[in-house]
Amino acid sequence: LVNHLALIGCGLIGSSIARAAKQFKAANKISVFDRDVNVRERARALKFADHVAETAAEAVDGADLVILCVPASAYADVLKSIAPVLKQGAIVSDTGSVKSSAAAILKKYLPPQVSIVPAHPVAGTEFSGPDAGFAELFHQRWCILTPDEAVPQAATEEVGAFWRALGANVDVMNAEHHDQVLAITSHIPHLIAYNIVGTADHLEQVTQREVIKYSAGGFRDFTRIASSDPVMWRDIFLNNKQAVLEMLSRFLDDLACLQKAIEHDDGEALHKHFAHTRAIRKEIIAAGQETKAPDFGRNPKPLQ
Amino acid sequence: LVNHLALIGCGLIGSSIARAAKQFKAANKISVFDRDVNVRERARALKFADHVAETAAEAVDGADLVILCVPASAYADVLKSIAPVLKQGAIVSDTGSVKSSAAAILKKYLPPQVSIVPAHPVAGTEFSGPDAGFAELFHQRWCILTPDEAVPQAATEEVGAFWRALGANVDVMNAEHHDQVLAITSHIPHLIAYNIVGTADHLEQVTQREVIKYSAGGFRDFTRIASSDPVMWRDIFLNNKQAVLEMLSRFLDDLACLQKAIEHDDGEALHKHFAHTRAIRKEIIAAGQETKAPDFGRNPKPLQ
Repeated sequence: LVNHLALIGCGLIGSSIARAAKQFKAANKISVFDRDVNVRERARALKFADHVAETAAEAVDGADLVILCVPASAYADVLKSIAPVLKQGAIVSDTGSVKSSAAAILKKYLPPQVSIVPAHPVAGTEFSGPDAGFAELFHQRWCILTPDEAVPQAATEEVGAFWRALGANVDVMNAEHHDQVLAITSHIPHLIAYNIVGTADHLEQVTQREVIKYSAGGFRDFTRIASSDPVMWRDIFLNNKQAVLEMLSRFLDDLACLQKAIEHDDGEALHKHFAHTRAIRKEIIAAGQETKAPDFGRNPKPLQ
Repeated sequence: LVNHLALIGCGLIGSSIARAAKQFKAANKISVFDRDVNVRERARALKFADHVAETAAEAVDGADLVILCVPASAYADVLKSIAPVLKQGAIVSDTGSVKSSAAAILKKYLPPQVSIVPAHPVAGTEFSGPDAGFAELFHQRWCILTPDEAVPQAATEEVGAFWRALGANVDVMNAEHHDQVLAITSHIPHLIAYNIVGTADHLEQVTQREVIKYSAGGFRDFTRIASSDPVMWRDIFLNNKQAVLEMLSRFLDDLACLQKAIEHDDGEALHKHFAHTRAIRKEIIAAGQETKAPDFGRNPKPLQ
């Protein structure tokens, strides 16, 4: 149990942590701040925190665990304003999707008497903002912690226990490896989803109305992740540049093989590739990271 | 109302048409055939047809509307066996995802006294086989008819009325345009989904177990369409080669721009692209082709 939790940023993630911490009794007191006055107003109306502060410094005053829930580009401003007022022995964590750059910036601005335990809950929806959050967002999802060797074991354990209280599973790994894993499981999928939605938008031989009408053939699935928060995703690609470009180059090499197979009418190569990819979905479902309801459960009648 | 409907192929699509035609009273009598003896056995057990024939010729005997629900590579065999026994004035349709090649093969094998009305219901799930079908599959989805000018208007209208009776919306367009529209709304999305699942599988720096655990970051969405029927998809890419390669080249050009923006730390270009793609999803939801339940409705608690 955390005595005093402070959350900086009240979007989908911050407001979900607040709701979950309250509902699952993971914190005694919750203070929050968001730099957007409209979001602070919504936070007050939605009552997911005990205190909505007017500054980041006010929110972290006396806090035992501070979690940054803002896009990477906002870290520096937040850290500058909270660094002077952090309680001795406080733990500072975050929720960003790129961990090497997060670790660097947290270390740069924070004083040595606080423990830095960067974290990344691998969970989300396509919606943003304080109204989009809900307490169950982290249930059965993984939260990855990437503390460096200098961090006291007790601090890592406290952050891990907090995430477990919200229903998440917890893993610890180094930041560089995290960034490679997420490049392929999250960043490249988002990049190509954003890209194909853009391509469809620019075609002159197919109208946007046609794309919308016939999107049930596969396209609509990509629009979900391509409607994620643009600022957050800009920051992710800028901060995980190396791993993203590396994985993108692998993706493009593989795509060139499929392209060649189509060009050369190589049905055998295509079939071999396509027959291979079902297994991984079964394992994702077995691991509780996906539902097997047909068509994502979009249809009224479930599979028998 | 169709008096006698014959369906060749009892997979997801064929068995869904049979179930829907029965439930929504769109046909008096339904005969089906599948070349796989195990599927015929399941069809008998599931009772979605009045008659499960032992040959395609037997199934179409006396039928007013015959619909092929088999992968493109199976058309020639089916057509050779049914051509000699089709009733004078029968309508022959299909459900394939590529229409130019379908029209050519239907015309090649069928006698002049039958009307050819190729069709493509833009609906499906990631599951295959007779057990995966359900009557509501076509509700609110579009079925595209691509008859050529020689086809009697009455035949096109009859097929359209049949699909409307199953709950679908009906459009008529030429086959070449259909193939371009579907290349971007369905074929390229499947190609890149199959491709990224393959890429993730081949990495040496990230294990398959890690891909599975952290798939909720975006990757899992792609595994749904990458677990579609491999034979059907091999045939689609072989038969819509030109349009797929053309759209793939557009996709790759656009992806090169995003790649360059990442390489050059061009946050403005990234943000501009990402901010633009939310609108199209809203329109897809407004058009009834998608649900706005957060995270595809995977989560227990809906958005308020």
